[in-house]
Amino acid sequence: MDHRSSLSIRKNGRMERRERADAARNRRAILRAAEELLRRHPPEQVSVERVAAAAGVGKGTVFHRFGSRTGLMRALMSERARELEEAVTQGPPPLGPGAAPSERLVAFLEAVAELAARNGNLMAAHEHAVLTSKSEQPREANPIYVFWHRHASGLIAEARPDADAELIAHMLLGTLHMEPVASLLRAGGHERLAASFADLVRGLLKP
Amino acid sequence: MDHRSSLSIRKNGRMERRERADAARNRRAILRAAEELLRRHPPEQVSVERVAAAAGVGKGTVFHRFGSRTGLMRALMSERARELEEAVTQGPPPLGPGAAPSERLVAFLEAVAELAARNGNLMAAHEHAVLTSKSEQPREANPIYVFWHRHASGLIAEARPDADAELIAHMLLGTLHMEPVASLLRAGGHERLAASFADLVRGLLKP
Repeated sequence: MDHRSSLSIRKNGRMERRERADAARNRRAILRAAEELLRRHPPEQVSVERVAAAAGVGKGTVFHRFGSRTGLMRALMSERARELEEAVTQGPPPLGPGAAPSERLVAFLEAVAELAARNGNLMAAHEHAVLTSKSEQPREANPIYVFWHRHASGLIAEARPDADAELIAHMLLGTLHMEPVASLLRAGGHERLAASFADLVRGLLKP
Repeated sequence: MDHRSSLSIRKNGRMERRERADAARNRRAILRAAEELLRRHPPEQVSVERVAAAAGVGKGTVFHRFGSRTGLMRALMSERARELEEAVTQGPPPLGPGAAPSERLVAFLEAVAELAARNGNLMAAHEHAVLTSKSEQPREANPIYVFWHRHASGLIAEARPDADAELIAHMLLGTLHMEPVASLLRAGGHERLAASFADLVRGLLKP
């Protein structure tokens, strides 16, 4: 192997790694900027231009990374949901394995309420899209919802094998999406919702 | 006073009473026919013509009594809600006064689930109207919902003064309106929903 071409390969490798690192950093910066803007503004005011400016990147970079504004919104929701899924399956208790089912479910619903509040405007925008478009899948077929529902119903079934875990999990998770609870979340009231989830869950699952 | 005119007044009185009795009977027949049709068909297939035919009256009579198809739907929902309100305020326990708050709330949510199942297509049609029309008031401002919420939150507060009765009542009642619970109700699964309401309520309110 020629010495110069091997050096050139190493150089190209370094450049590619740097490009990948830049891309990952841009991606994170864009997602953080979009989340921050959505916390403070209704979704129709959060344009790609505005996200790009807040993230310190060009508008083209946002389209290159996420395809479209809808793609960005989906990516943001997926990113948050993935973090929660990791915490639930591998993180420390009470969210992760190792605590009693009732305490795991209380911690999970608290995390879901917090996520819904942080991304309230985003969820509202997503709900609106689902309601007004026939092509969108219903909420209960969404992979994020499927995971949330399976986790919640599993914990209910573990502590209360006699209860209708499947239905009760739908009932608990459904409260997030409905008025006036959704307005409460958008107004930052997720701790109030988490406290009532805890009352319902501890009552249902206490031995 | 002239004998004949007094007789004529009595005759007119009898005729007016008979007309009022006919009108009330027609009204009941129309409401029963509409309810029966809505139980078996999607609301867009329940036309005024069809209701009139099933009730054995003319189409004009339906319009005369209810103003419009929407007026008929509203009247039907109000009628069912009024019957439930009477049972709650003056009927026998556990729905009416005299039972423990938890048993009254279990009975109330069972009745609400049954009403929602009987009028599921109607509620779906109403929800759709609310979601697609800006002029409709939100569900939580509807007088029926206001009564239901006040009753449920009052019972929760009575048994659990430390709980967030207002929010929990919204959470419980909200489950009726959301997928996949709404589909379950339309498919006749109100007993399954009532059983899960009972599990949640007894857990929350047990001493």
